[in-house]
Amino acid sequence: MKRIALGIQYDGRQWQGWQTQPHRKTVQDTLEAALAKFCQQSVATVCAGRTDSGVHAIEQVVHFDTEAERELFAWVRGLNAFLPATVAVRWAAEVAGGTQTSGAEQDAFHARFSAQARTYHYLIYNHPVRSPLWSGRSGWVFRPLRVEAMQAAAQALIGTHDFSAFRAAECRTMHTITLQRQGELILVTLKANAFLHHMVRNIVGSLIQVGIGNAAEAWVGEVLAARNRDLAAPTFSPDGLYLAKIDYDARWNLPQIDTTTPLFWNHNG
Amino acid sequence: MKRIALGIQYDGRQWQGWQTQPHRKTVQDTLEAALAKFCQQSVATVCAGRTDSGVHAIEQVVHFDTEAERELFAWVRGLNAFLPATVAVRWAAEVAGGTQTSGAEQDAFHARFSAQARTYHYLIYNHPVRSPLWSGRSGWVFRPLRVEAMQAAAQALIGTHDFSAFRAAECRTMHTITLQRQGELILVTLKANAFLHHMVRNIVGSLIQVGIGNAAEAWVGEVLAARNRDLAAPTFSPDGLYLAKIDYDARWNLPQIDTTTPLFWNHNG
Repeated sequence: MKRIALGIQYDGRQWQGWQTQPHRKTVQDTLEAALAKFCQQSVATVCAGRTDSGVHAIEQVVHFDTEAERELFAWVRGLNAFLPATVAVRWAAEVAGGTQTSGAEQDAFHARFSAQARTYHYLIYNHPVRSPLWSGRSGWVFRPLRVEAMQAAAQALIGTHDFSAFRAAECRTMHTITLQRQGELILVTLKANAFLHHMVRNIVGSLIQVGIGNAAEAWVGEVLAARNRDLAAPTFSPDGLYLAKIDYDARWNLPQIDTTTPLFWNHNG
Repeated sequence: MKRIALGIQYDGRQWQGWQTQPHRKTVQDTLEAALAKFCQQSVATVCAGRTDSGVHAIEQVVHFDTEAERELFAWVRGLNAFLPATVAVRWAAEVAGGTQTSGAEQDAFHARFSAQARTYHYLIYNHPVRSPLWSGRSGWVFRPLRVEAMQAAAQALIGTHDFSAFRAAECRTMHTITLQRQGELILVTLKANAFLHHMVRNIVGSLIQVGIGNAAEAWVGEVLAARNRDLAAPTFSPDGLYLAKIDYDARWNLPQIDTTTPLFWNHNG
């Protein structure tokens, strides 16, 4: 029995999120169907970060155990032949195995439990008129956004907090939040040890309130301190959300690429 | 009767090109249906550059004549309310009118006849593995491309030539061809007085033959000189092709934005 880790990219627009559902219109169902065809046996996958309906992934990480013997690049090429254009395997690696039910084993790789941090990108299209070329791929804000005010407001979220106001009921550690503008696009990049349901979309929604001038910079910190979800802004659109990067210890030696800069962003600057 | 010019953006994936067809699954049919609803009368549009099935536009320019009285931004907002997510009006301007059947009138604006140059972008995704996030939005080349060789080969096309080898039977003047790489993406930008059917896709297909080392740099110039379409590479995918910019005389005072750098490219560099 071997344990294989895969890097997976997907356009989330037509998928009902990552996690398997009875209707099977999910990325996990689609990947597992391709694995069943390629391995000639059913395969159960574990992912690093479950994404919601409409959310994209630049690099999701999954693992599974199999008795199938394949060369590493054959996993990539073979599975991609069974996957639709909106989902692809980007790389494959053999990792140390163990039982999937426990993350306690330090010597076994586990896509979720071995993860040390997660990075998400939220892409905002900031222009008076909507853009067909970014439809479904960005959140649209037609009022001008003050990116510097949003960056300042975001500082209140850095560190270890009870993020109840932004949905999670447990403490999480936010490592960094950075905002960058390139023309009409604003990229918000958030890195934390873990995110809970809707947390990024709720934070971005609140930062946008600061950006359009509806709230002061200090308001985001006040919302956080109040631990009351009702005070924060509504959950923002999934369209601009990308699971970008899962950090693992270097000893796993995964062939991850640098996805902290997304494909559609300036790689040189 | 007023003449209105519009800047139009579209994602070409689900459209059978620009030009009206009996099945009406085209961008022109969709825009004219929105115009008919908004103006309460049928409106015929003329575009600057007809795009093929699957080809995108960052800024197509169209004009039409109407008796409907609307404020300029109302054309944008009102039409966008009747257009699907994949098509949008980006700006509207009132221009000097005339008869649509003739381009000879120097004092009338005509989307096609007043155009002085066209710029297309062709976006290549150059990576061993296909990318779901660029599916339908770029041409995929899995073999490494030598961009410098492609740029050198492209120089043979600059100037006024009979581009028969690349499809057109008449002389056209190519102003510039530039290639830029950012990470896994290569952007080919071509500016000419006019392009004929499949010309950009045929040129890009030939440059890719140079890029992967199947042909020498000088081969592109030889193909051009031979004026024989059979010598050039096959027509490359429409997925990566974007009509980007139509140049008009400054006296028309159109509110065009700078689309020579596409939305998904580094705006700072």
